[in-house]
Amino acid sequence: MKKNKTLKVIPLGGLHEIGKNLTVFEYENDVILLDCGMAFPDDDMLGVDIVIPDITYLHKVADKIRGIVLTHGHEDHIGAIPYVLKEFNVPVYGTRLTLGILKNKLKEHGLTNSAKLNTLEAGESIRLGEFRAEFIHTNHSIADAVAIALHTPVGVLLHTGDFKIDPTPIDGDMIDLARIGELGKKGVLALFSDSTNADRPGFTMSESSIGQTFDHLFEKGTDKRIIVATFASNIHRVQQIINAAEKYKRKVAVSGRSMVNVLNAAIELGYMNIPKNTLIDIDEIGRYPKDKLVIVTTGSQGEEMSALTRIAFSAHKKINIEPTDLVIISANPIPGNEKAVSNVVNELLKRGAEVVHEKQDNVHVSGHACQQELMMILSLAKPKYFIPVHGEYNHLCRHRDLALKTGMEKKDIFLMEIGQVLELSRNSAKITGTVPSGKVLVDGLGVGDVGNIVLRDRKHLAEDGIIIVVLTIDKTSRECVAGPDIISRGFVYVRESEDLMDAVRAVADGVVQQCVNGRNIDWTTLKNGIKNEVGGFLFNKTKRRPMILPIIMEV
Amino acid sequence: MKKNKTLKVIPLGGLHEIGKNLTVFEYENDVILLDCGMAFPDDDMLGVDIVIPDITYLHKVADKIRGIVLTHGHEDHIGAIPYVLKEFNVPVYGTRLTLGILKNKLKEHGLTNSAKLNTLEAGESIRLGEFRAEFIHTNHSIADAVAIALHTPVGVLLHTGDFKIDPTPIDGDMIDLARIGELGKKGVLALFSDSTNADRPGFTMSESSIGQTFDHLFEKGTDKRIIVATFASNIHRVQQIINAAEKYKRKVAVSGRSMVNVLNAAIELGYMNIPKNTLIDIDEIGRYPKDKLVIVTTGSQGEEMSALTRIAFSAHKKINIEPTDLVIISANPIPGNEKAVSNVVNELLKRGAEVVHEKQDNVHVSGHACQQELMMILSLAKPKYFIPVHGEYNHLCRHRDLALKTGMEKKDIFLMEIGQVLELSRNSAKITGTVPSGKVLVDGLGVGDVGNIVLRDRKHLAEDGIIIVVLTIDKTSRECVAGPDIISRGFVYVRESEDLMDAVRAVADGVVQQCVNGRNIDWTTLKNGIKNEVGGFLFNKTKRRPMILPIIMEV
Repeated sequence: MKKNKTLKVIPLGGLHEIGKNLTVFEYENDVILLDCGMAFPDDDMLGVDIVIPDITYLHKVADKIRGIVLTHGHEDHIGAIPYVLKEFNVPVYGTRLTLGILKNKLKEHGLTNSAKLNTLEAGESIRLGEFRAEFIHTNHSIADAVAIALHTPVGVLLHTGDFKIDPTPIDGDMIDLARIGELGKKGVLALFSDSTNADRPGFTMSESSIGQTFDHLFEKGTDKRIIVATFASNIHRVQQIINAAEKYKRKVAVSGRSMVNVLNAAIELGYMNIPKNTLIDIDEIGRYPKDKLVIVTTGSQGEEMSALTRIAFSAHKKINIEPTDLVIISANPIPGNEKAVSNVVNELLKRGAEVVHEKQDNVHVSGHACQQELMMILSLAKPKYFIPVHGEYNHLCRHRDLALKTGMEKKDIFLMEIGQVLELSRNSAKITGTVPSGKVLVDGLGVGDVGNIVLRDRKHLAEDGIIIVVLTIDKTSRECVAGPDIISRGFVYVRESEDLMDAVRAVADGVVQQCVNGRNIDWTTLKNGIKNEVGGFLFNKTKRRPMILPIIMEV
Repeated sequence: MKKNKTLKVIPLGGLHEIGKNLTVFEYENDVILLDCGMAFPDDDMLGVDIVIPDITYLHKVADKIRGIVLTHGHEDHIGAIPYVLKEFNVPVYGTRLTLGILKNKLKEHGLTNSAKLNTLEAGESIRLGEFRAEFIHTNHSIADAVAIALHTPVGVLLHTGDFKIDPTPIDGDMIDLARIGELGKKGVLALFSDSTNADRPGFTMSESSIGQTFDHLFEKGTDKRIIVATFASNIHRVQQIINAAEKYKRKVAVSGRSMVNVLNAAIELGYMNIPKNTLIDIDEIGRYPKDKLVIVTTGSQGEEMSALTRIAFSAHKKINIEPTDLVIISANPIPGNEKAVSNVVNELLKRGAEVVHEKQDNVHVSGHACQQELMMILSLAKPKYFIPVHGEYNHLCRHRDLALKTGMEKKDIFLMEIGQVLELSRNSAKITGTVPSGKVLVDGLGVGDVGNIVLRDRKHLAEDGIIIVVLTIDKTSRECVAGPDIISRGFVYVRESEDLMDAVRAVADGVVQQCVNGRNIDWTTLKNGIKNEVGGFLFNKTKRRPMILPIIMEV
């Protein structure tokens, strides 16, 4: 009676947000996870390193999980794997490069030996319980990306992963539109498709168009050292830099730990085509004339500790910016990074370098499909149901509008939220419930121990600092025997505000004298009194509201 | 012997940064200030409200200051005036609307009665010591903007203020290119010109092109309530909204304090053309059908407390978003505000509203000149010397490149920094020194009392919180009689981390036992011991570095 059984699809991340992509597919006794990514913290998540999906639900289905299937090796698709594997050591399936990059990450977490990694190539399939996951070649800003066709008892589900349609990609193979079309003809029950660029009209340019830009810039900048910053994982971009370097007889050095790691993995796995004697060590750059060098580096997002930022602020041990440098930033700023990138550009310019970045030339193309491409996939896959994924609500809405243009009906399109359960049968689809979902904050080694209260305190401390009022009370005499002393951090520069600090002490002392002095002391009253009086006094004087923390010791 | 005397130009803000524009012009015994603006704090200036220029230098020339000349009423040109007037109550000269907006600001600072405001119209001049300041009509995203031609003993200096060239502006008058050309023919010694858009090719669209967009959107959205968010000070934009409302027989209500303030000033001064019975009070919107309403609101930058943000998050007392609302965000996000704006857009969409913003339509034009316009001004003014102003270093460089294209020589172009002194004679220009300059941070009522140490502490507190170790020592017995107690804020949620807190207490106690116990206590050793041991322990356990604050009381 399989026909009556339903398949559940439960996104635990990637909807109404950019990042932490993770989708659960559940049929009877089998569960598989598609991708398992992290997200970067929002501005208000002070001190948080990364954000991973809440996987409370997985504990409920722990013994059903057959494996994790990966579409590609970007952080927002693999970054949470170490955290999940520590709880459920299930097999992981991905293409060679995806797993190559994942291995670096597992090493940092000490999971190299325990993890069960399985390589598949595009075109191959793996059976996982009642599911069969088929890998379909796609184009993206990282090599070896795939879409996943999930063959299930209720029908075929197609998940694009991140993709674009590139007729002239660096590795020679366009996304396998033929296979997608074939599946479409046979019947796709549901399509899950990348919405990142759903608000951009037209078609995303080919990765190879960047090669022409590099060629042009290398030709123009003959007498200059050339420094190119790009995403560490975009090995096709790096390949094109190497191609240009070879053509203009330059050596290539690489700076930035993540760039070195990814490149080594890509070289080892045979993804790069590097002419002999082209790559040199960063320590060797002194041996070559500047106009015979190209340096490939991380830091295209202006990240604080990245190689390019250190170069720009003269804090890099091996690379000093000079007026004979041409710096190419081959990336667009991710929303939120605009200011950091423009700070880096300004610093490079101040040191005399020529800088080429987003606004001047065709130095970057997106890895995601624009509107025409998205409609093309919709028209090829001809899904019965459509779920736009990977994007903020705005992107999901725009993607829905595109699906409507291809002739789909509104009732067959689901704008889901994370934690919602979509139940699919051969002939029906509906949202039937929700499971726990959300953001788990990782700060240092702590996973989930920073919550709303801690963040609220950090925000309070960040804005106006802290005033500590400390005093010691004699248990027997019920008198204040030391203090109140006032200590502040992040409020005012104390040496220049002694009068204010003295006044605060007087205010606190007033409260203490009222509440203590041999009486039965109500601690809550005393603490609240100090908070209110000192807080009110300071707000009147400064219009600021530092955190007031009364500490009372008993001897 | 005037010919040998030189004029000093000293920018105290607006170079290598966006905002806090303030330029000092000094000739012998006369000093005038051109503009006097504020800037918004950078991301790392935690808790800071606004940034104003360091005016240390003005104290040196205090009795020479003849007045402040204003180009227009934006915050980055007038926002620091209250702070400067509190120290030097010099006369202020500006156009009617500029002073109308300034009056609101002076009122908040209790300076209404003391300030000496003097109105000039474009085309008029004012003599200030050896200077004569001539007001020249320009176009910008606020009405009544002017460029300033400074007639001085060494020659004519032309400062554009912020501008664009709009052949079809809402107030009917294009920037007075004729006068700029006339000055150019007679000879301009130095041009100071707005670099904000120097990296954008082409020509900035006319403000009136937005009117067509509004017309189109109002026509399409006949059955909807229309909410338009834009900059409070862009009264021409608001005029165009009112024009569209009149055409489609809608009432207009205004939400947001700054919008109401600016609009009232503009109406009072006769800058608006409002048909009778078009404006209604926000409290009256319940009396009209939704499709007969337009609401004009602040919040186009996603500012936390703005009207549009409160509307989007269902926190506005008078306006509830419904699926029959059309929201038009008639502004581009200022760099740094992209995420905040997209959060607002997503929330509006979730509540079912239709949202039109930067990416969809022609709903905003810049107020600043692009490359073609900048070169036009350079070619009209034909200055002997050129100083690009108003912009980050990147913008200044691009503007220099444009000047080179118009035939200027590199030696006649000065890329200045704030605090540098440019000395001009009839035939020469050179940088001859520097004066104190920089950023003064305003936090609440405190001006300049938040410096690097306070900001460093706030950053530390924001990232990992604080651990306070407090104990009481008996002076006589030299024993620890209370504590050590551990109090934390912004570190971990204590109720779920009791073991960790107990362990911290034990570590601290270990240090205390070693250092105290009847011995002569070296307080510095004890404090440093606690800091190091507790800090090291926590870093090992959590990979975080909270601020460790030991407090020792003596009884």
